Amino acid sequence: MTMLEEMGLKAKISAKELSIAGKKKDIALKAIADAIIENSNKIIEANAVDIENGKKRGLTASLLDRLSLSTERIKGIANGVLEVMALQDPIGEVLTGYKRPNGLDITKVRVPLGVIGIIYEARPNVTVDAAVLCLKSGNAVILRGGKEAINSNKALANIMRDAVESVGMSKDCIQLIEDTTRQSSMELMNLTDYLDVLIPRGGAGLIKAVVENSKVPVIETGVGNCHVYVDETADLNMAADIIYNAKTSRPSVCNAIETILINANIAEKALPIIKARLDEKNVELHGCEQTKKILGDNVILATEEDWKKEYLDYKLAVKVVKDIDEAIEHISKYSSGHSECIVTESLSNAAKFTDEIDSAAVYVNASTRFTDGGEFGLGAEIGISTQKIHARGPMGLKELTSTKFIIKGNGQIR
Amino acid sequence: MTMLEEMGLKAKISAKELSIAGKKKDIALKAIADAIIENSNKIIEANAVDIENGKKRGLTASLLDRLSLSTERIKGIANGVLEVMALQDPIGEVLTGYKRPNGLDITKVRVPLGVIGIIYEARPNVTVDAAVLCLKSGNAVILRGGKEAINSNKALANIMRDAVESVGMSKDCIQLIEDTTRQSSMELMNLTDYLDVLIPRGGAGLIKAVVENSKVPVIETGVGNCHVYVDETADLNMAADIIYNAKTSRPSVCNAIETILINANIAEKALPIIKARLDEKNVELHGCEQTKKILGDNVILATEEDWKKEYLDYKLAVKVVKDIDEAIEHISKYSSGHSECIVTESLSNAAKFTDEIDSAAVYVNASTRFTDGGEFGLGAEIGISTQKIHARGPMGLKELTSTKFIIKGNGQIR
Repeated sequence: MTMLEEMGLKAKISAKELSIAGKKKDIALKAIADAIIENSNKIIEANAVDIENGKKRGLTASLLDRLSLSTERIKGIANGVLEVMALQDPIGEVLTGYKRPNGLDITKVRVPLGVIGIIYEARPNVTVDAAVLCLKSGNAVILRGGKEAINSNKALANIMRDAVESVGMSKDCIQLIEDTTRQSSMELMNLTDYLDVLIPRGGAGLIKAVVENSKVPVIETGVGNCHVYVDETADLNMAADIIYNAKTSRPSVCNAIETILINANIAEKALPIIKARLDEKNVELHGCEQTKKILGDNVILATEEDWKKEYLDYKLAVKVVKDIDEAIEHISKYSSGHSECIVTESLSNAAKFTDEIDSAAVYVNASTRFTDGGEFGLGAEIGISTQKIHARGPMGLKELTSTKFIIKGNGQIR
Repeated sequence: MTMLEEMGLKAKISAKELSIAGKKKDIALKAIADAIIENSNKIIEANAVDIENGKKRGLTASLLDRLSLSTERIKGIANGVLEVMALQDPIGEVLTGYKRPNGLDITKVRVPLGVIGIIYEARPNVTVDAAVLCLKSGNAVILRGGKEAINSNKALANIMRDAVESVGMSKDCIQLIEDTTRQSSMELMNLTDYLDVLIPRGGAGLIKAVVENSKVPVIETGVGNCHVYVDETADLNMAADIIYNAKTSRPSVCNAIETILINANIAEKALPIIKARLDEKNVELHGCEQTKKILGDNVILATEEDWKKEYLDYKLAVKVVKDIDEAIEHISKYSSGHSECIVTESLSNAAKFTDEIDSAAVYVNASTRFTDGGEFGLGAEIGISTQKIHARGPMGLKELTSTKFIIKGNGQIR
């Protein structure tokens, strides 16, 4: 058995215990939250090593910031654990139940997925967030974080494991792969005998690699080439507000927009208003020829690449479109299926847009930045699915579950 | 563009039309049912070529029987189409809807998956069954059947395509890959830009190959290493009836049982009763040592292989177990996660079994043969999922759908 197979087996055994643990899961979560606070210093020490190494490796300031844990941030992480603890346990929910003509009683009940693998990058908070969401939903988890955060991750994982053990449960429901070479993630993607699902969390490159190489079923998350279409009937100030918010409130996240599409009949009036707002944050515009004609020379001429790109930066592609059909066509062609918005006062165009746009979240007159488990009222999220099977959009606890049928009879045969 | 990419693109365009087709889908289904009946002779002619080729290739009698289409069977296929037509349209169902504190109206609605690939083997009826279930649920389908049925499949696909076109819809919602080489199925498994999901239907070898090689998300179906555990408190005649039915009513299907586990305290009494029933069909028993001790020399000594095997034949593995825990442990180790049954009069053991067995369908006192979309009241089924993500157990129309969030606001920003 390889090291990872051994971890898989331990996880599977632990998952069985966890699947019927009921209220004990919350006791473990409380212990985890307490232990994280108690061990703040230990966490900060380990984190300091990662920061030191990161500086030597020349990580950017923003990457170092993501990596870094302060007492304040650690408190935030512990509070997050308590919030997950307070959520309703999804396990055991009866989704449907009925009696068949032959007398069989059939119920479909919610059960854990089993063993979940998470592959992620430089944020150590994911170590805790993912582990506790899995625990609350009755799943064992195998974590494979990035090398940048390995010392922080090890400290956090050990603290969580000890806390789980301290309340009399198997600590193998949370395991961290300490080998951060490419080899270990490849092996994880092949662990079909033990893993029920693999969830990559990170940039487009990581997600693509996992989707292409994994033999374990994958839930694809988070790549967001999101759009706002400004319809002919739009309230232009509302459009400018939504675009400004969706682009600049946090450009590095997947629910930020990357392209805006402007109806040709209002483009001359709308584009200067929108540009004025975006200029407040010096957003660089990559526009089509018509956009350039209207806004002038400080717009960069957009190429095919711009329609495809997730800038994750203060950059925005702009295209003037003939009508809503061209907007829908453009989005269908280039979108990653995450979040799109129409700004309109037309009921029929709103309906056409929500009917025909095939993305996880389709907005009328609101910022795409709301695509988030917390904002949608799911309590917490493990990621945002951009695939269509199993789960789509923000994934909360229910999306970390499966179902089984229970059939009760008194001797029925077929 | 390769041939398959072209098919994928056509399917994607057609899927968009289909996603908002509403009642027109039923008109197309009616046209398909009528056309199948009208063209019975054409279908039988094409099928005769397959049968002829099959005989030359030396296919077994049972395989030739599966392959063969009579007027009667064609009528059955057409009736199946009408039954699917009569089912409720799953698309547009609102699964949840609420208003957030900030005034956003959020609804989660059921939408088609998009483009579904089906890889299957020698049964030409799957060509129609799969196509109409996909059509009813608003999905375009790309079919890749086995070479044994290629002439029948081509005839059926063309008849369906013409029927769809005759009612004014794009015939590209149903496409058949005519190349039946390994190359075409490998290419289909890589068609990530166009396919939303791939469903293999067939034997264990086919399913394993698809699961291991596909980059498109797969729904794993149908491998069934199913078990009956006879508890200490079981009604032994009921146990014998259930075992007889679950093994012999149709041994070649995935919901037939392959192993029975007998509680040691009743084994001496139970095994002869069970064997007497199974002898009616000359079921070959592969038993553990204790089973051999009780039933004598006409039992073959079971090896590790027997616990793993899906016989799909008049063969059954038999093991005497100490108690329900050993039964659950054995099932957890060897089951394919399809269907398992406990025969018991003990309420607590029934609950323990349904809680702890992690399979798609868990039975108390009924035959595993009921694991079927029709028997579960789903109307029809595209297959039985044995994986945990997306769908588990019999998959009907709802399991061929995804969801999207629709968010309506009046200018909300975050």
